[in-house]
Amino acid sequence: MEKKLVVAALGHYALGKTFPEQKRAVKEAAKAIADLVENGANVVITHSNAPQVGMIHTALNEYCKENPEYTAAPMSVCSAMSQGYIGYDLQNAIRAELMIRGIYKPVTTLITQVLVDPYDPAFYKPSKVIGRILNDEEAKAEEEKGNFVVKEGNGFRKAVAAPHPKKIIELDSIKTLAEAGHIVIACGGGGIPVLEQGVDLRGASAVIEKDLIGGKLAVDLDADVLMILTSVDQVSLHYKSEQEKMLGTITAAQAKQYMEENHFEAGSMLPKFEAAIDFVESGEGKEAIITSIARARAAFNKKAGTIITE
Amino acid sequence: MEKKLVVAALGHYALGKTFPEQKRAVKEAAKAIADLVENGANVVITHSNAPQVGMIHTALNEYCKENPEYTAAPMSVCSAMSQGYIGYDLQNAIRAELMIRGIYKPVTTLITQVLVDPYDPAFYKPSKVIGRILNDEEAKAEEEKGNFVVKEGNGFRKAVAAPHPKKIIELDSIKTLAEAGHIVIACGGGGIPVLEQGVDLRGASAVIEKDLIGGKLAVDLDADVLMILTSVDQVSLHYKSEQEKMLGTITAAQAKQYMEENHFEAGSMLPKFEAAIDFVESGEGKEAIITSIARARAAFNKKAGTIITE
Repeated sequence: MEKKLVVAALGHYALGKTFPEQKRAVKEAAKAIADLVENGANVVITHSNAPQVGMIHTALNEYCKENPEYTAAPMSVCSAMSQGYIGYDLQNAIRAELMIRGIYKPVTTLITQVLVDPYDPAFYKPSKVIGRILNDEEAKAEEEKGNFVVKEGNGFRKAVAAPHPKKIIELDSIKTLAEAGHIVIACGGGGIPVLEQGVDLRGASAVIEKDLIGGKLAVDLDADVLMILTSVDQVSLHYKSEQEKMLGTITAAQAKQYMEENHFEAGSMLPKFEAAIDFVESGEGKEAIITSIARARAAFNKKAGTIITE
Repeated sequence: MEKKLVVAALGHYALGKTFPEQKRAVKEAAKAIADLVENGANVVITHSNAPQVGMIHTALNEYCKENPEYTAAPMSVCSAMSQGYIGYDLQNAIRAELMIRGIYKPVTTLITQVLVDPYDPAFYKPSKVIGRILNDEEAKAEEEKGNFVVKEGNGFRKAVAAPHPKKIIELDSIKTLAEAGHIVIACGGGGIPVLEQGVDLRGASAVIEKDLIGGKLAVDLDADVLMILTSVDQVSLHYKSEQEKMLGTITAAQAKQYMEENHFEAGSMLPKFEAAIDFVESGEGKEAIITSIARARAAFNKKAGTIITE
């Protein structure tokens, strides 16, 4: 049997927030991944990192205020740290779950950078809030440093841009390992966003949507399936209203129509559909699935989830 | 020309301490690695992480004291973060340096765990100090948590064990990429030390010597050359005394004799020679080189450094 290549994008539900929460949460995610492997898939995984990178960013930046021998930690560095941290827990949990099932498969995390366009309109309207709540004075200081802040409650929070991914720098290494049948964790937190400056790559003050990078990975790896794992088993229209309509298998054309009719919320379902449609349209016989971790296996076997096809 | 596989172990001189220091330092390390590539080598890199993991450990643990929704960061998690952070800067600097020279080669960091033995004698005598200086009260609290502390100046510092590496968990992925000609950064900071508990791997409160893991990597990958890059161009006996004698090319037998005569300092030259001898004795025609970053190319071409052969 020819193995299918699945790119799985894990949302923050799959990872928890604190150290012990993440350790527990990844066990459930690992079961879903092991299910896919048992059902004949090679798997490349990407994941979100919002609470983790937020904690790292805040801790390091508070620490350097009291310790002048250190300078502030750039967002890109915090993102690299979060890839290491989340990947470590995730690769461990998947390895253990596979061993329980008698499967030996290498599982590895790659530190991955993703090129973004300095002219991406997102840079003119930073929309992703990060870090703790700032008071007036701190907010002013951030603005003076050229950073953006947005009002939240009685205070402010720093906001960074969410540009589109243009190119996955370490794609060749991801591809080489995936082709060798290894399970690869890559582009964690959407990837470390970088800008090209001559031969150098410079960390950008930005965050890439994990759904968009999941779609990009699936397209670039010529995967068979893009599986976006989230908090719901199936997507619905008119969510939680009397006319609620569950979406089973739909075509990319239908999905596009729903998108144009503004059925999907920005920052939530919208990027999932954007990614799904881009992927399905990138080649023949491709399938994008949106479902929960609990229903991943059933959805892979076309018995659950929202499935977008040509 | 058959390519030689070189495992290069970078000491803390190659990385600096703070964010900006590391960014500058990796540029010099990148030149040395690019020199090896230009001279026909495939390269797998490992590196130390003491100041980096110390900063991360201290920042996260101070932060969680003020923020009770977070728990303390285990050493293993901090080590994973440091691999992500250092790997990111290093892979970027090497990629840029190769591009300047017109070479395209993928460069990637793998999050790597290394199995240690719970009965390793090192666990009974923790020797690696980490984190900031603690006062009497804090030292007592650490001891009550089952951690070790050692006296330093007027205070105390936490100490963790430095056990020997037994097995590199992600070896297959390192090998697959190295064989494909990619430059791989792995086992950063000696690797994340883990203990086997059934199918699970649990982070150990320990640090593995980067020289020892360098040697282990070189043996397990059946490399041709182990290159330990440190602060001196060449090793000497009777360092800085009138009888100082520089060591050029020597045999493993000679190196062993010097070791037995206690010429090399524990925690400094001793682990380098331990690693070098183990590697040279692991197969035919193997070469271990101890030199500085500045002399790496010359030493690779047998014109500098201390070279240990069969």
